[in-house]
Amino acid sequence: MRPFDMSPDEFRRHGHEVVDWIANYLENTRDYPVVPRVQPGDLARALPASAPEQGESMDDILADFQRQVIPAVNHWNHPRFHAYFSVSASAPGILGEMLATALNVNSMVWLSCPASVELEAVVMSWLRQWIGLPESFFGMIHDTASLSTLHAIAAARAVADPDIRHKGAGQGLVMYTSRHAHSSVEKGALSIGLGRDNVRLIGVDSEFRMDPVLLRQTITDDLRAGLKPFCVVSTTGTTSVASIDPVAAIQDIADEFGLWHHIDAAYGGPAAIIPEMRWILDGAARADSLVINPHKWLFTPIDLSAFYCRRPDVLRQAFALVPDYLKTNQDGVAVNLMDYGIPLGRRFRALKLWFVMRWFGREKIVSILRAHIQWAAELRSWIEADPRFEICAPTRLSLVCFRLKSGDDASRALLDAINASGTAFLSGNVLDGRFVLRFAIGNVGTTHDDIAAVWDKIRSLAG
Amino acid sequence: MRPFDMSPDEFRRHGHEVVDWIANYLENTRDYPVVPRVQPGDLARALPASAPEQGESMDDILADFQRQVIPAVNHWNHPRFHAYFSVSASAPGILGEMLATALNVNSMVWLSCPASVELEAVVMSWLRQWIGLPESFFGMIHDTASLSTLHAIAAARAVADPDIRHKGAGQGLVMYTSRHAHSSVEKGALSIGLGRDNVRLIGVDSEFRMDPVLLRQTITDDLRAGLKPFCVVSTTGTTSVASIDPVAAIQDIADEFGLWHHIDAAYGGPAAIIPEMRWILDGAARADSLVINPHKWLFTPIDLSAFYCRRPDVLRQAFALVPDYLKTNQDGVAVNLMDYGIPLGRRFRALKLWFVMRWFGREKIVSILRAHIQWAAELRSWIEADPRFEICAPTRLSLVCFRLKSGDDASRALLDAINASGTAFLSGNVLDGRFVLRFAIGNVGTTHDDIAAVWDKIRSLAG
Repeated sequence: MRPFDMSPDEFRRHGHEVVDWIANYLENTRDYPVVPRVQPGDLARALPASAPEQGESMDDILADFQRQVIPAVNHWNHPRFHAYFSVSASAPGILGEMLATALNVNSMVWLSCPASVELEAVVMSWLRQWIGLPESFFGMIHDTASLSTLHAIAAARAVADPDIRHKGAGQGLVMYTSRHAHSSVEKGALSIGLGRDNVRLIGVDSEFRMDPVLLRQTITDDLRAGLKPFCVVSTTGTTSVASIDPVAAIQDIADEFGLWHHIDAAYGGPAAIIPEMRWILDGAARADSLVINPHKWLFTPIDLSAFYCRRPDVLRQAFALVPDYLKTNQDGVAVNLMDYGIPLGRRFRALKLWFVMRWFGREKIVSILRAHIQWAAELRSWIEADPRFEICAPTRLSLVCFRLKSGDDASRALLDAINASGTAFLSGNVLDGRFVLRFAIGNVGTTHDDIAAVWDKIRSLAG
Repeated sequence: MRPFDMSPDEFRRHGHEVVDWIANYLENTRDYPVVPRVQPGDLARALPASAPEQGESMDDILADFQRQVIPAVNHWNHPRFHAYFSVSASAPGILGEMLATALNVNSMVWLSCPASVELEAVVMSWLRQWIGLPESFFGMIHDTASLSTLHAIAAARAVADPDIRHKGAGQGLVMYTSRHAHSSVEKGALSIGLGRDNVRLIGVDSEFRMDPVLLRQTITDDLRAGLKPFCVVSTTGTTSVASIDPVAAIQDIADEFGLWHHIDAAYGGPAAIIPEMRWILDGAARADSLVINPHKWLFTPIDLSAFYCRRPDVLRQAFALVPDYLKTNQDGVAVNLMDYGIPLGRRFRALKLWFVMRWFGREKIVSILRAHIQWAAELRSWIEADPRFEICAPTRLSLVCFRLKSGDDASRALLDAINASGTAFLSGNVLDGRFVLRFAIGNVGTTHDDIAAVWDKIRSLAG
């Protein structure tokens, strides 16, 4: 008896249609142009200005989804989506998310959904072991790395300025990250009221890695100026070039000056699951916190950002606030995840990751990640062999940065031409003042043939 | 060709199984005890300590989902889940979310998914019209009201202290909310470094509504003390008792002192869709920002929090940070939602709300919300007619607060007994020092019979 909702039988019928649609989509994604051929406003103008008074049939809604929405979709789940970082909703991940959606639970406190709270702890532990972090790291799930990193910076600040919880932010705190760190580091600092002037962007070496000598020098200068260094954020796989900061050397400096060390391994972290790549997180066991996003390079539908912290007590000190209407009989016995962060509402995100880790297993995950890294190296060699192109950064993970030697205008025009062709989607960046193209590999559906076909297309469009 | 992923045919087979499972679940939710009969650690101990080396079959994973996970689930989608606020994943919402999961897009900038960015603008406009806000309000989706409100406070602070973006937080800013406001208001302030001492909790009248006289007095006192009042947060439907702050009177005070006025209508806002309840948002058209959560009382699977702001320029001033790798040809022409908030990654949340608003239509939504409010009034009359019980707060929306006259211990024992019975899940609160039970109505599957059956159970357990 659900008199107000669609009947279970009607749901069953449309649910089967939707599953068939998804199965066809996964099978035939390559039939779609990756980048949609629409102009700003096209879709909004095509839709009614107001919601309907009377309900409409699901047949009509699904038809409009296909006819109106799909032509405006940029297909992130397409095997030839190589922009930003290439991500995946794998089939097992989709199945897990379907079930989580139907359960619609909220894991703010243990009692509000023991299954979700405990499965989150279990999969966070499983993933922690895969990337080689010790048991001392507490793990929890956030939506995005932006929020994970914001929580890390806020925790670091709570340590440096214990009065902040009651008195509010003081002045003089400064933090450090690389010139090539993701914008979310600076945005996190900005959002919690630190101010951009108090974020030092440290220079890099020839491989775009944070320079520990410059870091140490800047900290020393700030101390001499009477400022209070409190946090450093290193990156394992930067968004600009996938460079890998020297984590252990930065940790030594953090130890020397008593700084909180947060590692942004949002994209690159999964590579540490590969035995011969474990070195990228050398030193991480001594860090204070780390973020890795299974929704990036671990085949899990967005959103799912895994945040690890060796000092959960500090998270509680910074964020716990328990009103009477959220007290339970299990407080003090079970973990209430709302106490460790900003959002009260928390979806059952762990379920899809549990499906992904179990269905693939560690060995298959390793073999896929290895293939992606190998294909990136191969693509790099093809680019190097073409005299019209030049490589613009080392290729350690699955991102290749390159450009046309003929210059910025030609490189920008090439990017626009590839994206307009529908064959693939790449994105751009500016590196040392020069425009470069970014070719990211990471979708679970991508094959070696895809890489070769996209490279052929790039070559033909380069004129 | 997706050699690494589950084959589309295998996905089709398991997808149909999952849809059938969900259809049966929606049909037979009442067969499950609402609250699971587990102790902290039961599920975690039953699962392997490490993820598997080799992949496992989806048959095994789905079997373990049923056998291990489901018995630990607190069933938020159960028609007799009356704790906190009663929420729903309606069938049309589930179908929308399934498709969004498979597309796996990220709507950080317009180019990264025009469909998601533009559909978000469209459904935010539709919902804005339903609750009677003028066109001057810009709308965007966050995960939770916690984050929506945090963004409002941060924007208010950026207006009050324009130096903050570069210099960091200064001292002396104070904000105001009611003693009965949700903890997310104080947590938002805390998270951005305002400090708890700088959040004034204003007293309420006999109906638990913020008292404008006290608000005015407190602001005046703070000004006299040399402090800088900058923001007031009112609530339409408090979590503790669903009280409705006098929005227009608070707006007058905000205007007088130049404060940013944010309205937390996360739970209560949908009631404004009912013509005779529109008054709850009288004055809101003049406010600066408002949050309403379709994932609460609008039958949309979590998470989806709608945030409206009359000053999107301030959001940009507070949050925009555009690295080279996120620049596009459409910057300045199209809206890039990443510029208006903290998270860079943004799921295609608009799709499920589009499905819900279209499938139900305004008239049916109104009839369901009216029924919930009427059932709450009826439940209240039943409680009033039983001499063992007393009502503890006015019942304006769909929440009833009550207790046993025999005292706190008996009321707590009654709550534990109901929840242990499996018949229903209610939550508690402390009001004016006395323990009360909260009976929230709001799930789309709930019927009048459910309310009557749960009340019968409560009466029988009251001894």
